[in-house]
Amino acid sequence: MKAEIITIGDELLIGQTINTNAAWLGSELAKIGVRVSNSSCISDKELAFLDALRTAQERSEIVILTGGLGPTKDDITKHTLCKYFETELVLHEASLKRVKAFFEQRKLPFLEANKQQAMVPASCLVLENLVGTANGMLFQMDNGGICVSLPGVPYEMKFLMETYVFGEIKQRFELPTIVHRTILTQGVGESFLAETVRDWEDEIRKRGIELAYLPSPGSVRLRLSCYDADAQQIVDEAVVSLKSIIGEFIYGEGNVSLVDVVVGLLISTKKSISTAESCTGGLLAQKITEVAGSSEVFEGGVIAYQNSVKEKELGVAPSIIAEYGVVSEETAMAMAKGCREKFGTDLALATTGWAGPTGGDEKHGVGTIFIALSSEKGEVAQKLSLGKNRDRNRDMATLYALMMTFKHLSR
Amino acid sequence: MKAEIITIGDELLIGQTINTNAAWLGSELAKIGVRVSNSSCISDKELAFLDALRTAQERSEIVILTGGLGPTKDDITKHTLCKYFETELVLHEASLKRVKAFFEQRKLPFLEANKQQAMVPASCLVLENLVGTANGMLFQMDNGGICVSLPGVPYEMKFLMETYVFGEIKQRFELPTIVHRTILTQGVGESFLAETVRDWEDEIRKRGIELAYLPSPGSVRLRLSCYDADAQQIVDEAVVSLKSIIGEFIYGEGNVSLVDVVVGLLISTKKSISTAESCTGGLLAQKITEVAGSSEVFEGGVIAYQNSVKEKELGVAPSIIAEYGVVSEETAMAMAKGCREKFGTDLALATTGWAGPTGGDEKHGVGTIFIALSSEKGEVAQKLSLGKNRDRNRDMATLYALMMTFKHLSR
Repeated sequence: MKAEIITIGDELLIGQTINTNAAWLGSELAKIGVRVSNSSCISDKELAFLDALRTAQERSEIVILTGGLGPTKDDITKHTLCKYFETELVLHEASLKRVKAFFEQRKLPFLEANKQQAMVPASCLVLENLVGTANGMLFQMDNGGICVSLPGVPYEMKFLMETYVFGEIKQRFELPTIVHRTILTQGVGESFLAETVRDWEDEIRKRGIELAYLPSPGSVRLRLSCYDADAQQIVDEAVVSLKSIIGEFIYGEGNVSLVDVVVGLLISTKKSISTAESCTGGLLAQKITEVAGSSEVFEGGVIAYQNSVKEKELGVAPSIIAEYGVVSEETAMAMAKGCREKFGTDLALATTGWAGPTGGDEKHGVGTIFIALSSEKGEVAQKLSLGKNRDRNRDMATLYALMMTFKHLSR
Repeated sequence: MKAEIITIGDELLIGQTINTNAAWLGSELAKIGVRVSNSSCISDKELAFLDALRTAQERSEIVILTGGLGPTKDDITKHTLCKYFETELVLHEASLKRVKAFFEQRKLPFLEANKQQAMVPASCLVLENLVGTANGMLFQMDNGGICVSLPGVPYEMKFLMETYVFGEIKQRFELPTIVHRTILTQGVGESFLAETVRDWEDEIRKRGIELAYLPSPGSVRLRLSCYDADAQQIVDEAVVSLKSIIGEFIYGEGNVSLVDVVVGLLISTKKSISTAESCTGGLLAQKITEVAGSSEVFEGGVIAYQNSVKEKELGVAPSIIAEYGVVSEETAMAMAKGCREKFGTDLALATTGWAGPTGGDEKHGVGTIFIALSSEKGEVAQKLSLGKNRDRNRDMATLYALMMTFKHLSR
């Protein structure tokens, strides 16, 4: 069962808007076993539109259009759909009533342009938009499939998909069993990971599992997909054996982020935490406090950007900085220790490093970052050797600090 | 001059990743007068890929592919490009050296899969990736145009576009004269802005200027574009009259962010700053320290998440919290004052509020945030009444705190 998404709008092509609709549709359709095989974004010109429709109908049973509907749009979508499906616009009484009421309720003038919104192609199934003015439309295609046109406003599009379209798809098509599981790893590069799981990967591919590596800076998600009748069991077994190979890098599964997992663990184990940041400059605390509910476990933090702050606020001995350097394992551990004492928390994290793009001293170059964790067991530190990209280095240091916390809490 | 973007990757089709590359490319190409007329996202299957390439070449002079390059097995891009352009993979010595050095520097094992990354199609112009391992490739197309293949990691893709591709496009094609100026505003909503500048907008449209409103939470960028021979003068005049209407909301121009402007002003006026954050939880400090060079002016900060930290670390009198509440103008000002004294800085910023999604007290509901600035002139505070979205509220509070600093420094 193949689906195709066509998104209409110049604002997407010239990058004024990021296409989040396509991502949402792709993800929700995958969940019911419909695979989006192609997603295109076109200009709101009739020719481009007809061309895209024709191509889509040739290769897909489900075609979903979003955008190009609405009172201020260069509204060519409905006219072009009429042309393509050889029909004409007619007034949809129920919609006229609804749109009028919509304007009355908001005390806005009802304009001719708004009346146009109640016009629909005669041959389509009208998907009434109860959260906006532009209706959705469902057409039967010659190839036995369906073509659905929806407004581009994300919450209206989602409303129509959830209220009508998923149901229509389930009713009209026989959908395959499909099982996805996404395993989340941190602290291991894509190529090293691939090398490590090579035999396992060969094995699971033979069993009908598709594997995708989804890397983002500092972390790789591994997605397993299977369409077999026994998909659930096959995938579950593959995950068990994967965990026995790379378990130390795995922090979770599905759509959660590392920081969600860490804050969840802090809450469930009733451990408080504080932060002492130099090179990450607040990013680590910001990530932790981004999680709603983090105030249960996060006490506070110090951003110790200057050496004087490290000494005065975190009690790092000037002799440590003098002897080992401000970017060193010793300084990182002293920062974490001082932080834990200052805030009286169970755990404390510290970061110090040369985030870049310039900096470095005789001992360590740009991209060297030390992270440390202080707990009742004492201090542990880790050295990272990264590149020159400041933002990336800060992100990575934050991820590694969180992973250090995850390992401490989960073992 | 038409361009087309092809993004490769199942992770985009099934919505695990949002396609931000296409938006960035569309926007940057528009700036040099190249219009993206079609953007499609395809699966990493050879057939889909060849099909998309053929279609793109038929209608566009510039084809840009992103994604599908990397050390792991799901990458068929290079092989398919070889097939399409009738060439074969050869070893690129310089890349092999570079990739090896990349791994050595990071103390990672160099694997066979990484060696593959130094293989390139014989007929392409290699765009050496100095910030990652997967090279970009530029092919001459039969239609006289070019086809560029880039890795999907955004910062690598951007590096290659900026280092090589924009230059190649400018050299190979005759591009139209185009003048863009982007005026940056903060603290005024899109619809209010549109209403305020309505007459000005009518006027400049008559003079051939296209105007785009580019809103992001808390700030709106106004982009003026003109294709006229006198474009520079026409646009400059329009900007002068715009400044006379909404000058108080303008903090800069072009691609800079508010925080870049603020840190620049701090450096040029030799003022130091520190931060005391409750609801923003480190975001404000993180934004400031994101700017390279911020260590010249940023001393440090306290994340005072719990009341005890506000009292102990920032000297906020318990009576102030008891009388006015922890989310109040008075607490925000006391935090800023205490922070300025603690770090001995010229300025200090403080935030306290109900970031959401839950919270609030009898005086203030979710979305109420106070920001304060302390300087040699005393403390000033501002109240924000926002919604229930935690991330957005934290972003907005940070922006308003920076805008408060901008106004203090620039007036």
